[in-house]
Amino acid sequence: MTEKGLLLVLSGPSGVGKGTVKSAIVKNKVFPFEYSVSMTTRKPRPGEVNGKDYYFVSQERFKQAINQNELLEYNQYVNNFYGTPMAPVEKMLEAGKDVLLEIDVNGAKKVRKQMPDGVFIFLTPPDLHTLHTRLENRGTESEDVIMGRIKQARQEILVMQDYDYAVVNDTVANAVDHIKAIVEAEHVSVKRVINTYRKMVKED
Amino acid sequence: MTEKGLLLVLSGPSGVGKGTVKSAIVKNKVFPFEYSVSMTTRKPRPGEVNGKDYYFVSQERFKQAINQNELLEYNQYVNNFYGTPMAPVEKMLEAGKDVLLEIDVNGAKKVRKQMPDGVFIFLTPPDLHTLHTRLENRGTESEDVIMGRIKQARQEILVMQDYDYAVVNDTVANAVDHIKAIVEAEHVSVKRVINTYRKMVKED
Repeated sequence: MTEKGLLLVLSGPSGVGKGTVKSAIVKNKVFPFEYSVSMTTRKPRPGEVNGKDYYFVSQERFKQAINQNELLEYNQYVNNFYGTPMAPVEKMLEAGKDVLLEIDVNGAKKVRKQMPDGVFIFLTPPDLHTLHTRLENRGTESEDVIMGRIKQARQEILVMQDYDYAVVNDTVANAVDHIKAIVEAEHVSVKRVINTYRKMVKED
Repeated sequence: MTEKGLLLVLSGPSGVGKGTVKSAIVKNKVFPFEYSVSMTTRKPRPGEVNGKDYYFVSQERFKQAINQNELLEYNQYVNNFYGTPMAPVEKMLEAGKDVLLEIDVNGAKKVRKQMPDGVFIFLTPPDLHTLHTRLENRGTESEDVIMGRIKQARQEILVMQDYDYAVVNDTVANAVDHIKAIVEAEHVSVKRVINTYRKMVKED
């Protein structure tokens, strides 16, 4: 019985440590997953391989990909475009492989629209989780600093509400453990496995 | 930040090994949880303590509990009633403690109605999971046996669809690992933690 793979989207506010957490998952082989190779209009750097590091394409080809809805999400940094091609991701999922995307919150929002069944993990800044203690101990910090953090926290919570899981990045090891548990749990969630069971008993 | 505890409902077809899996969770202290003490009309056996092993009550008191909707679920075996009082469960959940209930599928159905936010885990017979291989290798077993198993499988799948997770009880260790992951994942699910975060930033 091969179930579809999981699309795992790891995101969170900038600076929260998404890259570090992803690297730890890769390095410690926490669970097996496939990489999605991004498409970009920037020039290859020495040693970079087309189709492995990136799909290096022209501006024209990238714009065509946008117009033909071939991308799960894309972004422009300086003068270059970066995007996630949809077809290879879908192919890996159909083959029962999990795919991990580490992207910013805007990218994650776009992916959610195209692939609502993905598992969306919001990496939470530890100081959001501990803000309550700071609020309880007011007076040890300037009111401006506290008010600034509350304002930012409200923004983070607004973004978080569209995710499936909120994992506090207090230590990389803790965050990785939680992500591992999420992947294991999602693989046995009824909404994901029931169709495989149903197909099985129709085969008579 | 104290979040509400999880109501974990472990159920599945009779004979699937719910009791064994629960005992392994208890014995190996896989995760901390509270017991719910059942109410019963049967007489205490030597050594059983009221309020610890069971709440031992009269038939009249039990019927009152039913009528006043004090029970999450109840059942009658032979001439005795057995049920799960709701109030202590709610109290433990409010205090942030997880509560584990190991009950039959009828009981689980009743609990779902009263506590839809519970985490419902269906323990799946391993021969349901491996039925596809038996179907592929038809001829090695009598067609009657196979058809009987398919019929039973359809029933099991119908019941499973109302659960959150389907954990195959192929080995007790595997089942316990999956349940541990489910508990960890549910504790970081956005639907469970977001209210705590929201409350926090309203405190200014």
